[in-house]
Amino acid sequence: MLKFTIEKKMEGKLARAGVLETSHGKILTPSFVTVGTKATVKALTPEQVADLGAQVVLANTYHLYLQPGDELVKKVGGLQKFMNWFGPTMTDSGGFQAFSLGVAFGSGVSKIASADKKDIVNRCGEMSDGEGCSLAKIDEDGVTFKSHIDGSFHKFTPEKSIQIQHNIGADMIFAFDECTSPNADYDYQKEAMDRTHRWAERSLDEHKKLNAENKISLFGIVQGGRFEDLRKESAEVISKMDFDGFGIGGSFNKEDMNTAVGWVNKILPEDKPRHLLGIGEPEDLFGGVENGIDLFDCVAPTRMARNGTLHTKDGKINILNAKFKDDFSPIDKDCKCYTCKNYTKSYLSHLFRAKEMLGSTLATIHNLYFINKLVADIRQSIIDESFDQFKKDFLGKYKKE
Amino acid sequence: MLKFTIEKKMEGKLARAGVLETSHGKILTPSFVTVGTKATVKALTPEQVADLGAQVVLANTYHLYLQPGDELVKKVGGLQKFMNWFGPTMTDSGGFQAFSLGVAFGSGVSKIASADKKDIVNRCGEMSDGEGCSLAKIDEDGVTFKSHIDGSFHKFTPEKSIQIQHNIGADMIFAFDECTSPNADYDYQKEAMDRTHRWAERSLDEHKKLNAENKISLFGIVQGGRFEDLRKESAEVISKMDFDGFGIGGSFNKEDMNTAVGWVNKILPEDKPRHLLGIGEPEDLFGGVENGIDLFDCVAPTRMARNGTLHTKDGKINILNAKFKDDFSPIDKDCKCYTCKNYTKSYLSHLFRAKEMLGSTLATIHNLYFINKLVADIRQSIIDESFDQFKKDFLGKYKKE
Repeated sequence: MLKFTIEKKMEGKLARAGVLETSHGKILTPSFVTVGTKATVKALTPEQVADLGAQVVLANTYHLYLQPGDELVKKVGGLQKFMNWFGPTMTDSGGFQAFSLGVAFGSGVSKIASADKKDIVNRCGEMSDGEGCSLAKIDEDGVTFKSHIDGSFHKFTPEKSIQIQHNIGADMIFAFDECTSPNADYDYQKEAMDRTHRWAERSLDEHKKLNAENKISLFGIVQGGRFEDLRKESAEVISKMDFDGFGIGGSFNKEDMNTAVGWVNKILPEDKPRHLLGIGEPEDLFGGVENGIDLFDCVAPTRMARNGTLHTKDGKINILNAKFKDDFSPIDKDCKCYTCKNYTKSYLSHLFRAKEMLGSTLATIHNLYFINKLVADIRQSIIDESFDQFKKDFLGKYKKE
Repeated sequence: MLKFTIEKKMEGKLARAGVLETSHGKILTPSFVTVGTKATVKALTPEQVADLGAQVVLANTYHLYLQPGDELVKKVGGLQKFMNWFGPTMTDSGGFQAFSLGVAFGSGVSKIASADKKDIVNRCGEMSDGEGCSLAKIDEDGVTFKSHIDGSFHKFTPEKSIQIQHNIGADMIFAFDECTSPNADYDYQKEAMDRTHRWAERSLDEHKKLNAENKISLFGIVQGGRFEDLRKESAEVISKMDFDGFGIGGSFNKEDMNTAVGWVNKILPEDKPRHLLGIGEPEDLFGGVENGIDLFDCVAPTRMARNGTLHTKDGKINILNAKFKDDFSPIDKDCKCYTCKNYTKSYLSHLFRAKEMLGSTLATIHNLYFINKLVADIRQSIIDESFDQFKKDFLGKYKKE
C-alpha cells in the first residue's frame, strides 16, 4: 500500500515536495510518470527507462485488455513481471481510450470531431489523435466500444475496469470515469460528472472486494470540465470517498487548466497524492506543481520524440530540420542524458532521415530525461525555496511553439 | 594496421582459430561480423551490440555515400565516432548494393529477377530482396546506378569506392568487385572475374595513395562464380596482390558453397584473414570455418529478428505463431542473452503483435547473441580439437527449414 509523506510545502502556494512509497519502491514527488501504453515504454528497454531517471511507469488498461488480455498478464504474475519493469507501476482506467474511439454515439453527447480534439489538453492518451471512425456508447452502466484491433464489441463498466486493473496488477490504479469534450455544455458536463461520481462509488466497492491483500491502491478521479462550481462539487464528492489518491481528469481549455487544478486541490485532502492526467508540457508542469499536483503522465515526450521533436532548454527543435544535418553538437550541450553524452544532432538527423529505429530510441531517452530532470529540478526548487526564480528562469528561456 | 595470428589449426582441415588485431581492438576468429548498414545496427544501441558479444561492425558504403554522405562522416571523425561504436569496423565496397538495384542493364548481363534472387546465397545485403525497379549499368570503368532514395544517377568506380571507404574510415575495407548472378553463364562469369581483377589492382593503387598513415586495411575479393577453374584462377590472381586480407564474394548455389570456399582457401595465403561475404546461417558457418573462413557477415540474423523469426538450438521459430501467446518460457531456456534472461515468449509475442519497437530490439539481441555464441563455440571447438563432434551435435539438433 501507499505511504505519502510531504517533505516541504511552498509558502502561500499549494506546491509540495513529497515521497510516495509503494511496495515496489519510492517515488520522489512531484514526479513525471512515464507512459508505457502496451506494457512497454515505446523504443526503450526497462533498463534504459530506469537509467534516464524515470521512477514509475503507467500502462494502459484499454490496450492490455484487448491485447494480450488482462487474464494473460495476471497469469504471468502481473504487469511488472510481464514487462520486466520492477519499479512502481500504474494503470489508467481504460475509459479515455474507450471514449476517444468515438465518443458517446447516440446518447446525446456529440462525437468529438478532429477539430475539437485539438482542444483536448487533458488526457493526451495514445488514442487521442486517431480519427473517431469507431464508435462508443455511454449508458449508466458503462461504455460500449468497438476494438480498434478487430472491430469486436466490448463493454467497460466501473466493475469491469477495476477487475481488469486488478488482473494487470499495477501498484496504483484509477476509478472508471467519463472524460468529456472540453466543448460539452454545462448540462452535459454536470450529467457526466454525476455519472462519474456514481461510477467512482462502484469502482471503490469493486476494488474493496478484490483488494483483500491490500496490495493495490485506488485513485478517484475529479471531473467537472471548465466549470468552477462543478469542479468544486466534484472535488468535494470524490474527496469524501475512501480513495488512496486522486486524479484530476476530464478536459479544460489550456488557459483554464491551472485555475481549475487550483480549485480542486484546495479541496482535496492534503495528505494524499494528486495526479494530473495526461499533462506533460514544461509550462504545465510548473503550473500543475504550483497548484498542488504531485504526479503527471503524458505521452507527449515519447510521441514527440518518435517524430523527431526534441526538448531543449530553449524550446523544442525538430531534428529533421536541414540545419541539423551537419551539426556536430549534441541536442543540448548541458544535458547529461545518454543521447547527449554520446551522439551529435548530425547523427540523429541521419537516423531519422534513414528511418532507423535507433533514432526513436535516442530521441525518447533525451525527451524523457529532459522532462524527468525538469520535474526533479522543480522538486528541488520547492525544497530550496527557489521555485519562483527557477520557474521564471526556465520559462524565460523555453520558447513555446 | 592488422595483425593476424593463428592460434590453432585443425588437423587435416583448413579451419583455424586466430586473433585479428586492429587499432580499435582484437577480434577472436572465426568471428561473425555484425551488420550496421546505415551506421547503426538496426534497433540496438552500440552498448547493446557490445554486450551481446559482437566484436566488429560492418557498415555499408552504398548507403552511407547516399545518406548522410561520406564527406560528412569524414568531417565528424569517421564511422566509429559518428555511430559511437568504438570497436573494430568494416565497410563493404558498395558494389553489391549498386548492382542489386538492377544489375547491368544493357551490357549483356541479365537483370536478376525475383525468382533468381532466391538463389543468391552469398551477399545477403540490405538491398537483396528489393525488386529491381531501378537500373545499374556496368562498364570497364565502374557501375552507374540510380539512387534508391531520390532517383539521382551516381557512378562507383574502384577509385571512387576506395575514396568513399577512406572517408568513412573503417579499420577494414574491401576492393570494388562485380558480384554476378549465380545463373550467369561461364563466359559472363569469366568476363566479370577478369574485370574484378582489374578493379582489384585499381582499388589497391587508390588505397595506397590514400593510406599514407597506414590506418586502414584493404581486403581483395575473389570471384569466379560456381566454376572451379575460375575460382582457382581468381584466388591465384588476387592472392598475388598486396592485400591485407581476402573476401570471398560473388554467388554460388548453396550446395556448392563449401566446395568453392575450399578451392579458394587452399590457394589464399594462410597468414591473412579470409572473409566470406554475406553468409550467416548456422550450417554455413560450420561449412565456412571447416573450409578456412575467419570472418562472416550477414544481415539474416537481424532482418529475421525484425520479422519475429528467432534462432533456437532446435531450429528457427516464429514468435507470431499462436502457440507462443501464452508460453511463459524464454526463447531458449539455456540461452544467456539479455532477452532470454528477462523476457518470456509470451511477452515477445505481445510486442510483435502490438508492433512495438522493443520486440525488434529484444529479438535482434537474441539472434545476434545466438550467432556470436555459436561462432565463439565453433572457435573453442577448434582449440579443443572437438570441432567434428560439436558440429555433429549442433546440426543434429538444429532443424533446417
